[in-house]
Amino acid sequence: MALPAAWLNPPPALDETRIASGRARQLDLTKPPGSLGRLEDVAVALCAQQGTDRPAVDRVQISIFAADHGVCEEGISAFPQAVTAQMIANFAHQGAAISVLARHLDATLEVVNLGTVVPVPKLPGVLDRVIAPATANFAQQPAMTAEQVSRALQAGDEAAARACAAGMQLFIGGDMGIGNTTSAAALACALLHEQPHHLAGPGTGLDAKGVAHKAEVIARALDRHGADREPLAVLASLGGFEIAALTGAIMGAASRRIPVLVDGFIVSVAALVAVHQQPQVRHWLHFAHRSGEPGHGRVLEALAAEPLLDLGMRLGEGSGAAVAVPLLRQACQLHNEMASFSEAGVSNAL
Amino acid sequence: MALPAAWLNPPPALDETRIASGRARQLDLTKPPGSLGRLEDVAVALCAQQGTDRPAVDRVQISIFAADHGVCEEGISAFPQAVTAQMIANFAHQGAAISVLARHLDATLEVVNLGTVVPVPKLPGVLDRVIAPATANFAQQPAMTAEQVSRALQAGDEAAARACAAGMQLFIGGDMGIGNTTSAAALACALLHEQPHHLAGPGTGLDAKGVAHKAEVIARALDRHGADREPLAVLASLGGFEIAALTGAIMGAASRRIPVLVDGFIVSVAALVAVHQQPQVRHWLHFAHRSGEPGHGRVLEALAAEPLLDLGMRLGEGSGAAVAVPLLRQACQLHNEMASFSEAGVSNAL
Repeated sequence: MALPAAWLNPPPALDETRIASGRARQLDLTKPPGSLGRLEDVAVALCAQQGTDRPAVDRVQISIFAADHGVCEEGISAFPQAVTAQMIANFAHQGAAISVLARHLDATLEVVNLGTVVPVPKLPGVLDRVIAPATANFAQQPAMTAEQVSRALQAGDEAAARACAAGMQLFIGGDMGIGNTTSAAALACALLHEQPHHLAGPGTGLDAKGVAHKAEVIARALDRHGADREPLAVLASLGGFEIAALTGAIMGAASRRIPVLVDGFIVSVAALVAVHQQPQVRHWLHFAHRSGEPGHGRVLEALAAEPLLDLGMRLGEGSGAAVAVPLLRQACQLHNEMASFSEAGVSNAL
Repeated sequence: MALPAAWLNPPPALDETRIASGRARQLDLTKPPGSLGRLEDVAVALCAQQGTDRPAVDRVQISIFAADHGVCEEGISAFPQAVTAQMIANFAHQGAAISVLARHLDATLEVVNLGTVVPVPKLPGVLDRVIAPATANFAQQPAMTAEQVSRALQAGDEAAARACAAGMQLFIGGDMGIGNTTSAAALACALLHEQPHHLAGPGTGLDAKGVAHKAEVIARALDRHGADREPLAVLASLGGFEIAALTGAIMGAASRRIPVLVDGFIVSVAALVAVHQQPQVRHWLHFAHRSGEPGHGRVLEALAAEPLLDLGMRLGEGSGAAVAVPLLRQACQLHNEMASFSEAGVSNAL
């Protein structure tokens, strides 16, 4: 399978003229200049991304990518691997955090299953894109073949294509995969030349000894896979199916002019891979929250990202991004609906 | 006019049994323990405040208290004083930030006019509780008489009584009053024994020279009004009608078992006065955001408060609290609607 066009080519440029018109409008609204803080920046960025003076994020697609990880053989997670498949069923049955949040946001929620150790039955809202029951154990060998990486990237790109076809105004990717903080930390170490003990964290709940072991597993894997830091090679060596799919989805959304609201640690690492491959992707990204997972801070720094929320969330599933959707909506509402000084007959600053 | 009962008596205690049952439920939901971060704490606190295992903040009242300040004579604001009355009209005509936010939140919005230099005509949604055209200039004399403080506190208490009668699940107070960051900074200096240059900030947009002058005006007022740090005396000497009303509203809400979502600098100072008078009020407070106004940090510290948002907002009107309402709603939705491990057939941690 070929690599997606969005992997090979930069995304379109923003509509820069909307930045000036958006900033001018913010200055004309009945409030002290700048007093809506980051909500002003969000609204103006959405103007430039959506190519409009009236930004909106009413139509939101949340695509959860789920997959299992061979590196779980190394004992790096607090939860059993069967939970990946169980949580896919929980998404489908509306019981997971992201199910609850998506329902109340009136967002479209889909789950893309890329392969689980315990097979997943046919379920409503779950798309079968199974590549293999799990990646290979990257502590021993490359996680994916070149063909598998392409298929995962394409599965992500297809989600972005669905979002585009449905006229979505915002794309959110989420992750589910027991063991995936180990893969994400390894990817970030490779791309950022960081030490594993700086980026490995407790994930779903490891103790200090567990975190130290996880860092050792990552260090061993980095030694084994050597110095090739080209994004596609790094993804194949250390990635997960769902992380590669998230990378494909982020790049696919940007290539189709759909802004992306990036969730926590896992999705930020997928965004890091995307930006290493195509730096212009960065202009299409909003960052929802700073995860409780300690490695997230370093990844955000590398992306020059200052997330909107810092609530100590570390659940994945796109849940942190979903929690931030109302902020983007409110930024648009204020931008579009507040009165100007002249409309309201309010005196401007002295 | 007498002081409100909520000024003289502590509010009821929280329903402590709901803290244990709320925490137990959070541990049983299909997510790693603690992975919803502060949203878990918010949900559990609302359980204890609302005396229920199914908290909700669907019904929200936002009361904006507006008034003018005699201390504007000292040239401490970037906007002309006529803006207070103009903004009351803007609230009524749905053009202000809080108007837009309240409409989309389906919140009840009311404006309580406590007195403006430019008289306000009869307007829909604006309650006439005019005490005087403005407070006295506290750089020269006490801002309010004892009778005026009582009337302002009562006007706030009445707003809480309306919220109670309407079955509101959350109370938000907002402020409008050109010059009120000067009054709020003076109150905080008096109660916290702080230096004015630590707490005076740009407000609606003063430059460095303007901020220095504002600090000097506050320092002179503190010298004039002496060492009596009893909350009622401080409020009368240095307060504003809308700040006193906010204090009365916060205390009135707590006394009626209605949780309060505290907005930015002005409302936090009103909460500080309330907590100095009745420390148990603190248990009824959630803190929405850290304002861009620099003195807010010190006031939050004194209240042992860690706000949910930090977006650099500094608009007042209750706008920061309104922006945080979706977070409280999502915390409740997750608490009430997520599946438990046993319901979903998901394995718990190893």
